[in-house]
Amino acid sequence: PTEDLKQERRRATFNFEELAYVLNGGKELLEKKQRFAEILAKTSWGDKSRRYFLGREEEYVGGLRAALGIWEKMKTENLSLEDGALMRTLVDFPGGLELHIGMFIPSIMSQGSSEQQAKWMPLCMGLKIIGTYAQTELGHGTFVRGLETTATYDRQTQEFVIHSPTLTATKWWPGGLGKTATHAVVMARLMVPDERGAMRDYGPHGFIAQLRDLDSHLPLPGVTIGDIGPKVGYNGVDNGYLSFDHVRIPRDQMLMRFAKVTPEGRYVPPPPSNSKASYATMVFVRADIVKNAGSSLGRAVTIATRYAAVRRQTAPAPGERELQVLDYQNCAATLLPLIASSYALSFMGEEMMSMYRRFEQDRDRGEFGALPELHALSSGLKALCTWITADGIEECRRTCGGHGYSKLSGLPTLFQNYVQNVTWEGDNNVMCLQTARYLIKALAGVQQGKRAAGSAAYLNDVVSELAPGSRCAAACDECWLRPDVAAAALRHAAARSVASATATLAAATGGKGLAFEGRAWSENTVDSIRAAKAHCTFVLHQTFVDSVARLEAAASVSPPAGGQGQSVGADTAAVLRQLAALFALEQMERSGGVAALLEDGYMSAAQAAALRRRHRLLLAALRPNAVALVDAFAFPDYLLNSALGRADGDVYRGLLEMARGSPLNATQEGPAWPEVLRPVLAARSRL
Amino acid sequence: PTEDLKQERRRATFNFEELAYVLNGGKELLEKKQRFAEILAKTSWGDKSRRYFLGREEEYVGGLRAALGIWEKMKTENLSLEDGALMRTLVDFPGGLELHIGMFIPSIMSQGSSEQQAKWMPLCMGLKIIGTYAQTELGHGTFVRGLETTATYDRQTQEFVIHSPTLTATKWWPGGLGKTATHAVVMARLMVPDERGAMRDYGPHGFIAQLRDLDSHLPLPGVTIGDIGPKVGYNGVDNGYLSFDHVRIPRDQMLMRFAKVTPEGRYVPPPPSNSKASYATMVFVRADIVKNAGSSLGRAVTIATRYAAVRRQTAPAPGERELQVLDYQNCAATLLPLIASSYALSFMGEEMMSMYRRFEQDRDRGEFGALPELHALSSGLKALCTWITADGIEECRRTCGGHGYSKLSGLPTLFQNYVQNVTWEGDNNVMCLQTARYLIKALAGVQQGKRAAGSAAYLNDVVSELAPGSRCAAACDECWLRPDVAAAALRHAAARSVASATATLAAATGGKGLAFEGRAWSENTVDSIRAAKAHCTFVLHQTFVDSVARLEAAASVSPPAGGQGQSVGADTAAVLRQLAALFALEQMERSGGVAALLEDGYMSAAQAAALRRRHRLLLAALRPNAVALVDAFAFPDYLLNSALGRADGDVYRGLLEMARGSPLNATQEGPAWPEVLRPVLAARSRL
Ligand SMILES: Cc1cc2nc3c(=O)[nH]c(=O)nc-3n(C[C@H](O)[C@H](O)[C@H](O)COP(=O)(O)OP(=O)(O)OC[C@H]3O[C@@H](n4cnc5c(N)ncnc54)[C@H](O)[C@@H]3O)c2cc1C
Ligand SMILES: Cc1cc2nc3c(=O)[nH]c(=O)nc-3n(C[C@H](O)[C@H](O)[C@H](O)COP(=O)(O)OP(=O)(O)OC[C@H]3O[C@@H](n4cnc5c(N)ncnc54)[C@H](O)[C@@H]3O)c2cc1C
Repeated sequence: PTEDLKQERRRATFNFEELAYVLNGGKELLEKKQRFAEILAKTSWGDKSRRYFLGREEEYVGGLRAALGIWEKMKTENLSLEDGALMRTLVDFPGGLELHIGMFIPSIMSQGSSEQQAKWMPLCMGLKIIGTYAQTELGHGTFVRGLETTATYDRQTQEFVIHSPTLTATKWWPGGLGKTATHAVVMARLMVPDERGAMRDYGPHGFIAQLRDLDSHLPLPGVTIGDIGPKVGYNGVDNGYLSFDHVRIPRDQMLMRFAKVTPEGRYVPPPPSNSKASYATMVFVRADIVKNAGSSLGRAVTIATRYAAVRRQTAPAPGERELQVLDYQNCAATLLPLIASSYALSFMGEEMMSMYRRFEQDRDRGEFGALPELHALSSGLKALCTWITADGIEECRRTCGGHGYSKLSGLPTLFQNYVQNVTWEGDNNVMCLQTARYLIKALAGVQQGKRAAGSAAYLNDVVSELAPGSRCAAACDECWLRPDVAAAALRHAAARSVASATATLAAATGGKGLAFEGRAWSENTVDSIRAAKAHCTFVLHQTFVDSVARLEAAASVSPPAGGQGQSVGADTAAVLRQLAALFALEQMERSGGVAALLEDGYMSAAQAAALRRRHRLLLAALRPNAVALVDAFAFPDYLLNSALGRADGDVYRGLLEMARGSPLNATQEGPAWPEVLRPVLAARSRL
Repeated sequence: PTEDLKQERRRATFNFEELAYVLNGGKELLEKKQRFAEILAKTSWGDKSRRYFLGREEEYVGGLRAALGIWEKMKTENLSLEDGALMRTLVDFPGGLELHIGMFIPSIMSQGSSEQQAKWMPLCMGLKIIGTYAQTELGHGTFVRGLETTATYDRQTQEFVIHSPTLTATKWWPGGLGKTATHAVVMARLMVPDERGAMRDYGPHGFIAQLRDLDSHLPLPGVTIGDIGPKVGYNGVDNGYLSFDHVRIPRDQMLMRFAKVTPEGRYVPPPPSNSKASYATMVFVRADIVKNAGSSLGRAVTIATRYAAVRRQTAPAPGERELQVLDYQNCAATLLPLIASSYALSFMGEEMMSMYRRFEQDRDRGEFGALPELHALSSGLKALCTWITADGIEECRRTCGGHGYSKLSGLPTLFQNYVQNVTWEGDNNVMCLQTARYLIKALAGVQQGKRAAGSAAYLNDVVSELAPGSRCAAACDECWLRPDVAAAALRHAAARSVASATATLAAATGGKGLAFEGRAWSENTVDSIRAAKAHCTFVLHQTFVDSVARLEAAASVSPPAGGQGQSVGADTAAVLRQLAALFALEQMERSGGVAALLEDGYMSAAQAAALRRRHRLLLAALRPNAVALVDAFAFPDYLLNSALGRADGDVYRGLLEMARGSPLNATQEGPAWPEVLRPVLAARSRL
C-alpha cells in the first residue's frame, strides 16, 4: 500500500507545497505545526497511543492533564496565545478547561468592568480558579429569555441571591461544570425590587458565582453539582448540572461593564452598544466555527482519501489486480466533492475572519452598518458549514467500509466530537431562521425601495432575476465549468428561494404583513430554512471563486508571496477552479437546486443533463489530484491519529499495531474468562 | 410535560391499539413483549440502569452475562427460539455470543453434512464450545474471492493445514473472535494437490477450526488471536483478529454438505443447488435486516417524537407559553416523514418475510424461478432501508437539540450500534450495484423481447412509460394524495433511472455491449446506484399502499382479525394512507426524484409546486396523530432506555435521575481532584 500512495503523489499536476502554505497560513506556520506535533507526541500528556482505549474517568483525567500540560508549557516557554491554541488543536483532547479558556475568561473580558477584570483575570490566568459558563438549563436552551434561574438583589446586604426555583431551572450542559470548575458565569434573571418594593424582572444577566470550596473542592452550601453523564463524544469534558438554593454572592459579582445595579438597588440598563458588542462576539465565534469546520472536514477527507487510494477491492477481471476503491465512481463521487467542500469551508473561514477584522476597523470609527448583515450571514454559514462537515465526516467513515467503523480509523472520534457543532452555539435550524429573517426582511425592504447590502445585494435585482424570461447561460457542457455560470445559477436559486419563503410567509399571514414570530412564522419554517441554505451556498461558492482569483493574481506581483501562503501558480489555480466548479455542481445536484431551477424555468432539461455530465467528468478530471489535494492540508500523523490515514499508507500494519494495545488484550483469556465463561464452558469434554 | 403527552394522546383520530397489534404481530405477542420486558428488567443481567456508564471491559463482560442469562432462561423455562430472540431484542445488549447464535450455528446447519450436524450441534447448543464466523480479512472483505487464507489438504495425514500467508490475510472483524470464541467457521481457499502433485486452488470454502484450548482458554499453538479494539459502537462484542501458522485440522472439519474432499484427496464440486441455497440464506438474512430497520427507526422516532411533544422552546409572543417544538414546521418536517419511513420499512419487512416463505414453498416443489429477482430486490432493499434508518436515527437525535447529544437520550447508542448495518452483510453501495446489475440486465432483456418479472415487471412497459408524451396524472393538488398517482410517479422515476443507467453503461462500453465488471462498469456506478435506489423506493411505497389496502379489506371479513393484527378499521386506514402519501412525496423531494421527473418532462412545474404544497399540508394533517403513531410501536420503556422517550413524558426528572448515576459522580470532587487538580489549585489564596 505504501507504493500506491507514492504513485498517487507522482500523478499530481500541481505543486502541493504551495497549496499547503495557503491552507496553513504560510511556510513558517506550517513548519511550526509540524515541529509542535513532534514535541507534543513525546510528552506524557500529549501521547496518543492509548487515546482510543480510555474509559470515561481516564478520559476526563487525561483531558485535564493535557490542558494543564499545555498551560504549563505556555508559561515556561513563554508561548503566545496563538501557539497555545495551535497546541490544543494538535493534542485534540477536549477536557475540563475548555470553557475556562473559551467562555469564562472571554466573558469577564467582554462583559466585566475594568475593576472586575483587574480582580478576576489574574486568578483565571494563574489557575487559582477555574470557571465555566452556565446559561443553558434543563428546560431552556435556545430561548434564552425563558431561563428560570433568578438573581434577586438584596439591598440590605448588597448581595444577589441566586436561586433555582424549579427542576427545569437546573443548569445543564456547561462544560467543566461537573467536577472541575470552581466558579461559573451564571446567566440568571436579574430581579430588583422597585421603590415600592415590587419585584421587577430585568431578564437574563451574567453573574460570577463561586461553586466549590477552594480547599476541599466540595460544593459550597446551597450548591448542588454533578456530571450529566456520557455523551455521543466529548467525554473528556465533564458537562455538568447545577442548582442553587438561595446562594448569596456579593453585588460586585454581577458582570457590570454594560448593565449595572447600584448599591442602593437602582438598575442601570445597558447602553445600545451592549447588543452590538455581543453581536460582534457572536460573529467572531461563528467565524471560528466555520474555519474549524474546514479543517475538521479536511481531516476526514485526508483519512478517507488516502485509505481509498490504498484499499484495493474486487478484481475487474479474473487474474487482474484488485482496483483501488477510489477508482469506483461511487467512492470518488463521495470523496472528491467533500474535498471540494473542505476547501470551500477553509476559504470561507479565512474570509469570515477578514470580514470580522474589517468590521473591527469600522467599529473603531464608530461605524456599525455592516454588523446586521455580518451577523445574519454568520448564523447561516455556521449552520451550513457544520452540517456539511458533520455529514461529510460520517460519509468519509462509511466510504472506508468495515475498517471505518473501527475507532482506530480516527473517524468515529472525529465525528462524535464534532457533531455537537450542529447543536451548540445555536441549533442549526434556529441559526438558519435568523438568516432567513434577515433575507426576507431585506427582500421586503427592496420591494419598498430600500437597498440590500453585502452578500444579499443580489436581492436588489430580484425583479429582473426572477422575471419569466430569466435563463441560465450554460450553452454548452463545458459552460458549467465557468465560475460565472455556476455562480449565476446559485444566485438565481437563492433569489428564488428567498422570494418563495417570503411568499409562503405572506400567504400564511393572510395579507396582514410579514410576521417573524407566532404561528404563521413557526408553521412555515421549512421554506425559510431552505432560503438561508441557498443563500449561504451561493456565498460559499462565490468566496471560493474569489479566493482562487485573488491567490492567482497575487502570483504575478513581486516579490512572490508563495511562502506566506498568499499566492498560487497557474497549475494550482487550475485545479482549485475545478474544485470550485465541482462544489457548485454537487451542491446543485444534492440540495434540490436543480429541481428548483428546473421548476423555475431558469434551467432547461438539456442544461440539467449537461450539468450532470460535467459533474461526472469533473470527478474523473480531479481523480489524479485527490491525494495531493488532501496532502496539502498537511495534517501531521500525530493529529490524525488514524491507522487508515497515515501519510505512508501502511494501513494494515497500522491497524494491527494499534489493535494490539486494546485493553481487552491485556490477558489472553480476556476479562470474562475467570468468572463468566469458565463456569459455562466447564461442563465440556475434550473434543 | 406529562400533561402534554396525555393531551397529545387525546388528539389522536384513530384507535391506537388496533395499530399496535398490526405492528407487533397481534395482541398476544404484544402482551408477551410487555411481560418479558418486566421480567427482564428485574434480572441482574438484564437491568439497564448502568448500561450507559460501562467501560469497554464491563461492556464486554456485561454483554456475555446477558446472553448467557437469556440462554439459561430459555433452557430452564423451555422457551422457543422466537421467545429467545424476542428477549435478545429487548435486552438489546450485543455481546460475544452474537455470532455463535447468528452465524456459527446457522453455518453448520446449512453447510454441514448430517454427520457434522450430529457431532457439532449438541456441542453448540450445550455451550460446550462457542463459535464465530471468520471470513473477512484485514485486506479483504467485499471481494470474497480475494481471500488469502489457505486450507491445504495433506493426503498423508488426511488433514487440512490452515495458514495465513501474509499480514493482509489476518482474519479481522469476526464478532466474539477476540476473547470469547473457542471455534470458528473459517473461510479459506481450498488447496488440493492434483494427481501430478500440482496444487489446485478451488477458492474459498468453510472449515471448522478450533482456536482455543478448552481448559485454559488459551489460543492453540500456531493460532494468534486478539481483540481489534474499540469501535463506533457494538463495544460489548469482541470483534477479533486471527492468524494461522500452519494449523492442522482433521479432514472432516471441512463443511461438506455441498463441496467435498475425499480422504484420497479428490475434490467433489458442489451441486448447483449450493449457490441457490446460499442465495436463499442471503435473502432471509436481508429480510431480517429490513424488519429490524423498521423497528430500529421506530425506536428513534418514538423517542424524538415524544420529546418534541413535551419540549417547549420559544414563546410566540411575550407572555405566551413556549411552543412544543413539534409545532415548528422544521421539527415536524423531520419527524413525520421518518415516522412514515418507519412504517414503510416495517411493512416491507413483513412482506419480505412472506416472499421468503412463498419462495420456500416453491423451493420444496423444485421451483427456483423467483430467486434471482428476490435476491436482487433484497440486496437493494437491505441498502436503502439501512440507509434510511441510520440517517433517520441521527436526524432524530439532532432534532432533540442538546439533550439528544446525551447518551441518556438513548439515541446515541442506538445510532452507534445501528450504523454498521450500512456496511456489514454487504456494503450498501455494493448491494445497490447488485440490484442495478439485475435491473439493467432485465431492461436489456426486455429490449430483446424477454419479460421482466416480479417487482421489475414495470420494465416490460418501459417504451410507453418513457415515451415523450408520458405525463404525470396529478391534475390537482389533492391528486398527490392518490396512491396510484404517487406510485405512477415513483414508477416512472425508477424506469427512467434504470434506462439512464443502461444508457450510461452502453455509452461507456462504446457499443461493445453491456459489461458488468471492468472499467466501464466501475467508472459509472453512480447512475447504477441511483437506479437501484429509485427501484427500491418504488417497491417500498407500493408495499406500504398494498399493506394498508389488505389490512383495511380484512376488517370487513368476519371474524374480524384485529386481535391478530391482521386488520384495521377505516379511521386507522385513513391515517396510514396519509403516511404512505407522505412517504412518497418526501422521497421524491429528497432523493432528486422531483428533479428527475421535471427533467424528463413527466412532471410540470405546476405539478412540482402542488406536490410541495401537499407535502406541507400532510405534515399539518398528520401532526395530531404523531404521538399515537409512535405509541403504536408499543416499545416498552425498558427497551427504549431513554430519558427523553419515556411513555409518561417526565423527561427532566428522567434526565436528572439517570445523570446522578454517572460514575464521575461517585465522589463530589471527581477523579482528577487528588492528583491533578489539587496540586494546581493549591497555590491559590482565599478570595
Ligand atoms: C456538547 C454540548 C456542550 C454544551 N456546552 C454548554 C455550555 O458550556 N454552557 C451552556 O450554557 N450551554 C451549553 N450547551 C447547551 C447548548 O447551548 C444548547 O444545547 C443549544 O443552544 C441548543 O439548545 P437546546 O438544547 O435548548 O435545543 P432546543 O431549543 O430544545 O431544540 C430542540 C429542537 O427544537 C427546534 N427549535 C427550538 N426552538 C426553535 C425555534 N424557535 N424555531 C424553530 N425550531 C426550534 C430545534 O431546531 C431542535 O430541533 C452545550 C450543549 C452541548 C450539546
Ligand atoms: C461491526 C462489524 C462486524 C463484522 N462482523 C464480521 C464477522 O463476524 N465476520 C466476518 O467475516 N466479517 C465481519 N465484518 C466484516 C464485514 O463483513 C465487511 O466489513 C463488509 O463486508 C464490508 O467489506 P469491507 O470492509 O471489505 O469494505 P470494502 O470493500 O473495503 O469497502 C470500502 C469502500 O469501497 C467500496 N467498494 C468496494 N468494492 C466495491 C465494488 N466492487 N464496487 C463499488 N464499490 C466498491 C465500498 O462501497 C466502500 O465504500 C464485520 C464488520 C463490521 C463493521
